[in-house]
Amino acid sequence: MPNAAELNAFLKTEFPQNPCTVEAVGGGGATVRHPIGQGELRPGGTVSGPVMFTLADVSLYVAILGEIGIVPLAVTTNLNINFMRKPAATADLIGVCKLIKLGRLLAVGEVSIYSEGQPDMVAHAVGTYAIPPR
Amino acid sequence: MPNAAELNAFLKTEFPQNPCTVEAVGGGGATVRHPIGQGELRPGGTVSGPVMFTLADVSLYVAILGEIGIVPLAVTTNLNINFMRKPAATADLIGVCKLIKLGRLLAVGEVSIYSEGQPDMVAHAVGTYAIPPR
Amino acid sequence: MPNAAELNAFLKTEFPQNPCTVEAVGGGGATVRHPIGQGELRPGGTVSGPVMFTLADVSLYVAILGEIGIVPLAVTTNLNINFMRKPAATADLIGVCKLIKLGRLLAVGEVSIYSEGQPDMVAHAVGTYAIPPR
Amino acid sequence: MPNAAELNAFLKTEFPQNPCTVEAVGGGGATVRHPIGQGELRPGGTVSGPVMFTLADVSLYVAILGEIGIVPLAVTTNLNINFMRKPAATADLIGVCKLIKLGRLLAVGEVSIYSEGQPDMVAHAVGTYAIPPR
Repeated sequence: MPNAAELNAFLKTEFPQNPCTVEAVGGGGATVRHPIGQGELRPGGTVSGPVMFTLADVSLYVAILGEIGIVPLAVTTNLNINFMRKPAATADLIGVCKLIKLGRLLAVGEVSIYSEGQPDMVAHAVGTYAIPPR
Repeated sequence: MPNAAELNAFLKTEFPQNPCTVEAVGGGGATVRHPIGQGELRPGGTVSGPVMFTLADVSLYVAILGEIGIVPLAVTTNLNINFMRKPAATADLIGVCKLIKLGRLLAVGEVSIYSEGQPDMVAHAVGTYAIPPR
Repeated sequence: MPNAAELNAFLKTEFPQNPCTVEAVGGGGATVRHPIGQGELRPGGTVSGPVMFTLADVSLYVAILGEIGIVPLAVTTNLNINFMRKPAATADLIGVCKLIKLGRLLAVGEVSIYSEGQPDMVAHAVGTYAIPPR
Repeated sequence: MPNAAELNAFLKTEFPQNPCTVEAVGGGGATVRHPIGQGELRPGGTVSGPVMFTLADVSLYVAILGEIGIVPLAVTTNLNINFMRKPAATADLIGVCKLIKLGRLLAVGEVSIYSEGQPDMVAHAVGTYAIPPR
């Protein structure tokens, strides 16, 4: 199964606009980083919702690929996200995904999102991917 | 803050139709049991969806009351549930709730549901309660 | 495709505990009734959350069967429900489902829930069913 | 209450990175456009998930502001999105939001997302905003 470096290479080639990097993958989960700079902030110094959505979605995708191998055609079918606290304006966001189902056709996982170095979760997502028949 | 016995007494008095019992509460979470018998099964030996919804909702409610004290007027505003595996027909369901936000007005928690004694999660819920102003 | 009477007969045979009745089905949707009596109320005269969950789930199931025929093995994979207003204690609940996707493997629909005769929606659900391969 | 031109001016000033424009607002809803160009596409010609999330979130925000006036501090607390069909690569996305609850503290709405000029919904979202006390 692909490791973090292989998944980063895959993301760079296939999704050149993707801003996230894989920190760790395997064991039914993944840890993914979304760098936070001026471009990710809204007025008031809040990280925008779409940035957190992106991190949740990529974390889930990477966790799945870490289990089934690189299957580019897996697609998100549902994502439910709760926004709980204002993220820090000066810390990267870290997404920690744990898969809770890895079926033949559907995979489900949850993602906890943190501002790096801070204990309180800023957002939490649960999502489903449809996996193409192999 | 109320312990499991006090919460069970509260549930028995205020929600006499509630089938669930609190096994443990505190530390930002709760463990709750839903007994499974013939009445909870659908044809084919599947536990019905509303039974799992009930367990998720009660687990979240109990976890919140374990933190803020007995506030009967807290109400569910949102619950998202994923059904992942067929529960066992002959084991009770156990809900394990962890609160991920406990604000002044809103509390958010996630609930993992298992057939007792089996390792794989059968359902997973994330829900929000609105807490009345104190 | 089955009409309302055929679906009610199917529900009565296959899900004898089901309290809901189909009022209308077809055209990519369904209208379903959940009778409200003392057994559906919590203290304070509120209809319990599991009752609304049940109505949402059955409405979605019936809408799908109305399009694909009676396929008992379709199962809910995800249901997200928002509770918005306190339902009336003395009116039945009516669920109005519209399918928004009917794929080969997955169907998605939304359900608006009303207290009969009242204009404001009391709850709203969106859910996904997995359809067994035919 | 603000009209579409006033809301577009507000968005331009307060959220200069926002790509969406308000087409219509009022009556408890809003219609919002997200232009689709090369920057919104992923390899394979698919519109990326974060683009659809952005449109859902802005549509809901605009619909709320159209009812309560310009209250910049309203924030998303929950958003559930189902992705149903591949959007067209060469059509703008249109979000049609209908509010289903507008309370003092919480507003809930649903958003149907279409590729302009095409009948089938590509994604559907339901979200909640917390409204700051006035």
